[in-house]
Amino acid sequence: MIYFNNDYSEGAHPKILEKLAETNMEQTSGYGEDKYCVMAAEKIKELCGNKDLDVHFLVGGTQTNLTVIAATLRTFQGVIGAETAHINVHETGAIEACGHKVLTLPSSDGKITAKQIDDYYQAHVNDESHEHTVCPKMVYISQPTELGTLYTKKELQEISEICRKNRLFLFLDGARLGYGLVAKGNDVTLQDIAECTDVFYIGGTKVGALFGEAVVIKNNYIKEDFRYVMKQKGGMLAKGRLLGIQFLTLFEDNLYMELSNHADRLADELREAFDAVKIPYLVENTTNQIFPILPDSVLDKLREKFTFSYMNRVDEEHSAVRFCTSWATQAESVTALTETLKAILA
Amino acid sequence: MIYFNNDYSEGAHPKILEKLAETNMEQTSGYGEDKYCVMAAEKIKELCGNKDLDVHFLVGGTQTNLTVIAATLRTFQGVIGAETAHINVHETGAIEACGHKVLTLPSSDGKITAKQIDDYYQAHVNDESHEHTVCPKMVYISQPTELGTLYTKKELQEISEICRKNRLFLFLDGARLGYGLVAKGNDVTLQDIAECTDVFYIGGTKVGALFGEAVVIKNNYIKEDFRYVMKQKGGMLAKGRLLGIQFLTLFEDNLYMELSNHADRLADELREAFDAVKIPYLVENTTNQIFPILPDSVLDKLREKFTFSYMNRVDEEHSAVRFCTSWATQAESVTALTETLKAILA
Amino acid sequence: MIYFNNDYSEGAHPKILEKLAETNMEQTSGYGEDKYCVMAAEKIKELCGNKDLDVHFLVGGTQTNLTVIAATLRTFQGVIGAETAHINVHETGAIEACGHKVLTLPSSDGKITAKQIDDYYQAHVNDESHEHTVCPKMVYISQPTELGTLYTKKELQEISEICRKNRLFLFLDGARLGYGLVAKGNDVTLQDIAECTDVFYIGGTKVGALFGEAVVIKNNYIKEDFRYVMKQKGGMLAKGRLLGIQFLTLFEDNLYMELSNHADRLADELREAFDAVKIPYLVENTTNQIFPILPDSVLDKLREKFTFSYMNRVDEEHSAVRFCTSWATQAESVTALTETLKAILA
Amino acid sequence: MIYFNNDYSEGAHPKILEKLAETNMEQTSGYGEDKYCVMAAEKIKELCGNKDLDVHFLVGGTQTNLTVIAATLRTFQGVIGAETAHINVHETGAIEACGHKVLTLPSSDGKITAKQIDDYYQAHVNDESHEHTVCPKMVYISQPTELGTLYTKKELQEISEICRKNRLFLFLDGARLGYGLVAKGNDVTLQDIAECTDVFYIGGTKVGALFGEAVVIKNNYIKEDFRYVMKQKGGMLAKGRLLGIQFLTLFEDNLYMELSNHADRLADELREAFDAVKIPYLVENTTNQIFPILPDSVLDKLREKFTFSYMNRVDEEHSAVRFCTSWATQAESVTALTETLKAILA
Repeated sequence: MIYFNNDYSEGAHPKILEKLAETNMEQTSGYGEDKYCVMAAEKIKELCGNKDLDVHFLVGGTQTNLTVIAATLRTFQGVIGAETAHINVHETGAIEACGHKVLTLPSSDGKITAKQIDDYYQAHVNDESHEHTVCPKMVYISQPTELGTLYTKKELQEISEICRKNRLFLFLDGARLGYGLVAKGNDVTLQDIAECTDVFYIGGTKVGALFGEAVVIKNNYIKEDFRYVMKQKGGMLAKGRLLGIQFLTLFEDNLYMELSNHADRLADELREAFDAVKIPYLVENTTNQIFPILPDSVLDKLREKFTFSYMNRVDEEHSAVRFCTSWATQAESVTALTETLKAILA
Repeated sequence: MIYFNNDYSEGAHPKILEKLAETNMEQTSGYGEDKYCVMAAEKIKELCGNKDLDVHFLVGGTQTNLTVIAATLRTFQGVIGAETAHINVHETGAIEACGHKVLTLPSSDGKITAKQIDDYYQAHVNDESHEHTVCPKMVYISQPTELGTLYTKKELQEISEICRKNRLFLFLDGARLGYGLVAKGNDVTLQDIAECTDVFYIGGTKVGALFGEAVVIKNNYIKEDFRYVMKQKGGMLAKGRLLGIQFLTLFEDNLYMELSNHADRLADELREAFDAVKIPYLVENTTNQIFPILPDSVLDKLREKFTFSYMNRVDEEHSAVRFCTSWATQAESVTALTETLKAILA
Repeated sequence: MIYFNNDYSEGAHPKILEKLAETNMEQTSGYGEDKYCVMAAEKIKELCGNKDLDVHFLVGGTQTNLTVIAATLRTFQGVIGAETAHINVHETGAIEACGHKVLTLPSSDGKITAKQIDDYYQAHVNDESHEHTVCPKMVYISQPTELGTLYTKKELQEISEICRKNRLFLFLDGARLGYGLVAKGNDVTLQDIAECTDVFYIGGTKVGALFGEAVVIKNNYIKEDFRYVMKQKGGMLAKGRLLGIQFLTLFEDNLYMELSNHADRLADELREAFDAVKIPYLVENTTNQIFPILPDSVLDKLREKFTFSYMNRVDEEHSAVRFCTSWATQAESVTALTETLKAILA
Repeated sequence: MIYFNNDYSEGAHPKILEKLAETNMEQTSGYGEDKYCVMAAEKIKELCGNKDLDVHFLVGGTQTNLTVIAATLRTFQGVIGAETAHINVHETGAIEACGHKVLTLPSSDGKITAKQIDDYYQAHVNDESHEHTVCPKMVYISQPTELGTLYTKKELQEISEICRKNRLFLFLDGARLGYGLVAKGNDVTLQDIAECTDVFYIGGTKVGALFGEAVVIKNNYIKEDFRYVMKQKGGMLAKGRLLGIQFLTLFEDNLYMELSNHADRLADELREAFDAVKIPYLVENTTNQIFPILPDSVLDKLREKFTFSYMNRVDEEHSAVRFCTSWATQAESVTALTETLKAILA
């Protein structure tokens, strides 16, 4: 069985394991105050083009989202996101469990627009009984989105401007950020993101680390007491260096981009195969997740050799599914899939 | 200026004030353990046709909703409701502040169906990654709904059955219950509600009391420690007797139904006036809230003499608004409104 | 049976009922935005000697405490209070249910000192692993305390200075404030409290109102969005005017002070009776709560005619109990108690 | 500099790294549903002598404590623990942030007794106003405690009985469990713990793993939906196998006990050195943490070569400190310390 069902089926890139082994018996301070965390943070700040940023390392995505949001919002404030936002759909109400409502905007491709945000905000402040509704105070976007799509630089800047105008914090979830940065047609850089947002995170779990997400904070209000919230929410790793070492390895020699590139190029290949036989998509994108709509009979045959995720039924005979490539996907696996597809459809 | 903007613009029915004055210097236990609370609870249980119910008195609606839901759900569980549900829209995230997500179902008239609930529940349990989503455990409905519509007995029973089948608690918000019980065409009784739900409340604030909501609990799990949650959430009134006295007054001589009837008959009259000139409605109903769609020019003229609530813009020249009658509305006020309307439209 | 067990056994002072009856059929805006709330707020600001204060009205004490604290603290912050603080002991974990730890300081008389606060704060900031402990950010004191004792002006000013120095919010719970303001030997005025604290409340429930607490806010951070939190926590009364009318009645002709004086003078009388027979106290004070230590045999006899609260066992034959006078206590009741006491002890 | 300041200064035992490297490119399911988690769970159940247990793997201690407690308690319930309990002191209010009060019992050695628990419980249920106080529903103990002490089998059984009698859940925090199991004089086995508690955890982070805690649940109520809470609280690791692999390695060949034994024997050696020169202890124990009380002048000299934790000042010239040994401590480090100590004191 070949796994295309997600981008976290394997362990970590071998260089990471090597580095962990190499440093294993060193004695360091705990809780993220060791030299590796410092070095990794410095490297990330450098790549973001801003030495004034704060960088913290957390273990996983849901933990990161809830920690950032809880650190930022007061009890009566909520966070705006797409209906499809990970925090709205796939975190078992983690944000609500911290007391905050997720305020959803309709979206068919995982993205929301500056105009949608502004309209929502204006409707709120102009509502006579606004105190009877949750006060929007943060905007959550993902890059790439949960549907693999990407904001353009222009879209990101527009959202950023609207947020600043309306004093909304902007938070970007980069669980798969690498796969966005090197995607065909992408024009958004790490520096752009650091400039446009108040806080964002660079995902490691899905891009070659054993685990780990690097939170990058520009906003001073969020910076100030962030470590308290990390600890309170159970996100402060005792042996914090494990995170520092991994991110240092990912970023010191461009490994993060190389791994991302590997996945995206294989995804491009896969997309070409679908395109060649005119398969439509649930949503089109250029990153490492592909959402073809296929006949159920084809899916049944593919399931004999491959795993992938079921998205939803499209009509009586077709379903949308998801194939993921990753830093670990082998070229032969993609070839096997494209060949099998051709054979089935022939 | 004549108020039609809501059903809580005045104080209380005079009999309630009289009774409060009459008992004022009596010394009683606090926190709802006085004889008036006991008597009012007994009366309500009798009217519900079930002596095994527990009855508690709280001050207001949001407080009641959050207390009931917090008393029932565990941290990972959420409550299903219509998109238009009061808990979803007009309580400043009170439910989320208790840690629970409101899981919304689409609704154009404020109602949800047994099928919608079942579909949602089945989709959840059949989702492979259901543990990554909030576990639905309670259903919240309002009778009348926020849009003044009513569930029929059949609809209520169907919802009740689906909830029992799926082990979902059923909670009915009766903030305006009286106006539903005596509405034209209504076939749902207090006994039906007590039978179909796990917990519901009878609204006093909007039906002639100074304030107060009577929570009626059938489910033993919710019953057991309810007073702890009342206290924790700030809802246990020190002079609890004030609630007991008011509900006793409302229920011992059928006053609650009389006051509700007064409001609904005046609303009927108002509806007839709108019907006579073929005014369409945002949503049709038979209770004390009326949602006509009127030309903006007409609304401007009406605003000179009357207050009412703005709902939403329908097209460039029309808006939906809300007129409420109540236990306190005077017949002359309705006459004044219908005459004015005729004059404007003439 | 004569009640000395608390100060909320009766309804309200008759003038309050009269005023409620008089205004009953007036139509007003809801949610505290009516003219009575405005007038009462103006009157309170005037008495506090500061027109820049914000005043809001809530229904009860626990609700007020949790609303103020939730409106002020961020998720990782806690509130310092005496071990005996109402929020620590008698609110079913209301503060923790909002996510905040109550950080307790030892106290034998219900009071804490500026030095205790400063020591706690310094220990926190000097703790290397301070991020692993709750960040103290607010101080909660009561005036009078739960044990009827009073802070002197000097003590209050010292606490205020320490709080400002350490950027801690100071919150004073005045559930029985009136009984403190007119107590023998008290040198703290309403203006002093308004000056020394960031936020405090003036209790109505225990001082002649049917219910109600007036929150007075000086700190702009707490002011800004307070009404959102009131609504979210279920504390925004639909017919807010009921609170405005009551506080206006209590404060426009000095009624609040008169009622408080009535209770304190009767308490003084009672204290004299205990002193005359050399009864010791659990804690000495000059307000409306008296905590004598009496032989159990005496208590048994007193229980035949009087109700009072049991505090704790002192030794095998003695217990500490609490007698409360209130705005409603009758002089004859006190005479009955003192005579009975004399008779028993004779 | 030689580290004695804690037991998590190094990475992991080399066998763990080997096993991670060996399995690195295998493709497995995520979120703890892989074969390694299954195998590790089976092994742990076997060692606990009960196949009916549920075992889940989490990343860290605070995360584990908050997840277990949030999964068990309802909103109005609290958890009883020693004043010194980790959840009370060193988790930044993580439990309160989930809405639950930590109800503390005095303790000088980190332990609490069955009698203390029973007294607290009885006082609660016999309190007339018990609904105004937090309902105790869980007991939290640590083995070893935060002060390195151990419950005897008899003490553990007594606590267990009292908890069952009073329907309190019993939760044992085993962050350093290994160091307790092999301590001199210990008579409590893994089976005893599995039998006496409703839920407990076996710490990996401090006993040779990179990270990880194994939660063992006997109680069906806690079992049922535990994975929802893990996810909601950010504790469900995407690559869950990393935890399964580590625990499998620790438990399949007795490695966990060997590593624990290594640390405890070195601690014994250290204790002998302190005993030899009659150094008193803050608290005596037989596990891997030692709390000597030393002259400040001696501490200053020790600090030149060794790191250790400062506990508290004992008198003007003496302080209590903590030395930790661990699975990774080298025999030479202990020798260096004992020799240095002798030299200083000579």
